[in-house]
Amino acid sequence: MTLQKQNLPEMFPVPGFRLGTAAAGIKRPDRTDLVIMALAEGARCAAVFTRNAFCAAPVTVAREYLAQGQPSYFVINTGNANAGTGEQGIRDARLCCEGLAQHAGCSSAAVLPFSTGVIGEPLPVEKICAALPTALASLDENGWAAAADGILTTDTVPKGASRQIRIGDEIITVTGIAKGSGMIRPAMATMLAFIATDACIEPGALQQCLSAAVEKSFNRITVDGDTSTNDACVLVATATSPSPVLQPGGTGYKAFCEAITGVCIELAQAIIRDGEGATRFVTVAVEGGASSAECLQVAYTIAHSPLVKTALFAGDPNWGRILAAVGRAGLPDLEIEVVAIYLDDVCIVREGARASDYTEAAGQQVMARDELAIRVELGRGSCCEVVWTCDLSYDYVRINAEYRT
Amino acid sequence: MTLQKQNLPEMFPVPGFRLGTAAAGIKRPDRTDLVIMALAEGARCAAVFTRNAFCAAPVTVAREYLAQGQPSYFVINTGNANAGTGEQGIRDARLCCEGLAQHAGCSSAAVLPFSTGVIGEPLPVEKICAALPTALASLDENGWAAAADGILTTDTVPKGASRQIRIGDEIITVTGIAKGSGMIRPAMATMLAFIATDACIEPGALQQCLSAAVEKSFNRITVDGDTSTNDACVLVATATSPSPVLQPGGTGYKAFCEAITGVCIELAQAIIRDGEGATRFVTVAVEGGASSAECLQVAYTIAHSPLVKTALFAGDPNWGRILAAVGRAGLPDLEIEVVAIYLDDVCIVREGARASDYTEAAGQQVMARDELAIRVELGRGSCCEVVWTCDLSYDYVRINAEYRT
Repeated sequence: MTLQKQNLPEMFPVPGFRLGTAAAGIKRPDRTDLVIMALAEGARCAAVFTRNAFCAAPVTVAREYLAQGQPSYFVINTGNANAGTGEQGIRDARLCCEGLAQHAGCSSAAVLPFSTGVIGEPLPVEKICAALPTALASLDENGWAAAADGILTTDTVPKGASRQIRIGDEIITVTGIAKGSGMIRPAMATMLAFIATDACIEPGALQQCLSAAVEKSFNRITVDGDTSTNDACVLVATATSPSPVLQPGGTGYKAFCEAITGVCIELAQAIIRDGEGATRFVTVAVEGGASSAECLQVAYTIAHSPLVKTALFAGDPNWGRILAAVGRAGLPDLEIEVVAIYLDDVCIVREGARASDYTEAAGQQVMARDELAIRVELGRGSCCEVVWTCDLSYDYVRINAEYRT
Repeated sequence: MTLQKQNLPEMFPVPGFRLGTAAAGIKRPDRTDLVIMALAEGARCAAVFTRNAFCAAPVTVAREYLAQGQPSYFVINTGNANAGTGEQGIRDARLCCEGLAQHAGCSSAAVLPFSTGVIGEPLPVEKICAALPTALASLDENGWAAAADGILTTDTVPKGASRQIRIGDEIITVTGIAKGSGMIRPAMATMLAFIATDACIEPGALQQCLSAAVEKSFNRITVDGDTSTNDACVLVATATSPSPVLQPGGTGYKAFCEAITGVCIELAQAIIRDGEGATRFVTVAVEGGASSAECLQVAYTIAHSPLVKTALFAGDPNWGRILAAVGRAGLPDLEIEVVAIYLDDVCIVREGARASDYTEAAGQQVMARDELAIRVELGRGSCCEVVWTCDLSYDYVRINAEYRT
């Protein structure tokens, strides 16, 4: 069994944001592996990068260039993560930016580099630079679908989300693409997401909006708890819309933030649905916590437990494993007597023990679904948090054991 | 491929410590599933229990009784963990102790209960009590091998360790048994260990010795990071040896502690070797840390990473996954430029990038071994820590997905 994959939805173009692709032959011939994005003058850019201390060379360079001013271009390659490559990797990332800058007539620092693929191999800079003119020539506001394909590595489907909202008299567009099969491929240097909007918004507010959206989306998914060296999520506001500048607390700002968060959640969930070997999409909701932090602690302990994940794969309502995960999450003074656990609407644990009205048949009925929720009530406060995950299947082991062989 | 299992070594009897077994028919007929241990008068007992907040009823009762005084008996059943059973579970655990107390002519509180097996089913107290006379009749100082078999659940081999040391003119014996396929079966309420010695030692010193030994052995192993609701490790000193009382800092104390730690490490490693689906026994050593805590943080991040574990299963020297795990372990101000990583004696990462003299062939040669070490040098201090783990195989998923079905 595999989860139903979702097709790319209608991708509304974002005025002032163009995308181009090319086949540079980085790892395989005739595969689109180079994507360029061009930002209209006056566009603002916000970004969130991996917290992994071993961040890849392009992450280091992108952070540095972004601190120097607003970018005009992104250059993204697949097939090679340029991670674990030391000083040479930094030089190579700069060379790619320089190559694009020469063709485009901008400064190197106006080009942000992104790489995804195998760790530890030198970046084939010459191949990338040779393909830049083709990619530049194909720049188009309607290039989203081609770019969504172009940034994939081992993903099985392209991932995109797009929506339009009305703010005052104007329609604002938010469109984004992502790649990654979960946080599950540090060796494949996993997650990249690029989102653009034509809204007008100052850089500080844009960064605030993106950081909040990432916290509720990409930071709420887990396949196996591994964090990539290359993760990056970028949000561009081209300011081409005639609508007024969005201000925190002002008209339309809340709706705008909700649209950004909505697109990020759609992309994040698409990554879980395409998780390696995933056969079930699982929402883990923890309610009644004294703080968000402790809700997340419990949610991730459940979502990372190989025993819970194999039970999900088997469709086995093994409530003992969920209960044990809650118990070892490390919450101080947890009173187990008030904890309740649900599978969708079926109560499996009440007052810290198996619910008296629970039947195995009812549990199995929920576990047979390919989308289901594990809900935990801690009974010690009013905070709640949600994370999304998938199960642990034979295919996960096969994919990750066979990778590289 | 499976790891070579080790046979039970010669098990030296411990004067003053007898073991008896019976088949109570708890889960299956004709299987030894009840073990009783009888402690000579004057014996001292130390214990370490699970930190899981959802601890099982027998753990709650054993803790309570132990606080009231030194025990005379242990009653251990397999096939049922008496966990997630609420108030009824507490009553049932007490009833088993009471049953044994009546036969043995001691107080209920002098009997400590231990259970292991499926979570959430009511304990069949009557079956257990009915089999107590048989178990009592078989009490024998040479009962270690039968007891090692009797405490198993899904383990594939019995696990024991035994050694004798000379302290002054006397020979002191330390003998122990354990059960568990790693920390990997909270639903099977995993790990139990019982160790006995004929040494004379005060309870406080005995507890100190056990806590230190557990910290360096059972608390240094992981199969999948899950912690059982029933974990318990008990150390009994029968004081039957004519040797003088061991005192911290006094003659023989250090040798005694080393013997206890040695037996605990042997038992802990036997659990990893019998880990579900384990095909490789892996030592993760982290050196050069600023504190033991941060060394353990890095070691467990590596040992718990599904990507590292599947690479180990595949025999793939995927150093990028190990490097990424070190990077995301959360060490503040980690300087990646000084980190080195070794597979046995082969340096794979130096100065934060792939070692220039590393060859895939050399890495593969190490990964082909069924016992190997991953060694990380952090270069930020003088602390070091070691944990032991195994790989993540198809069989792990199969065993944990098929369990209960």
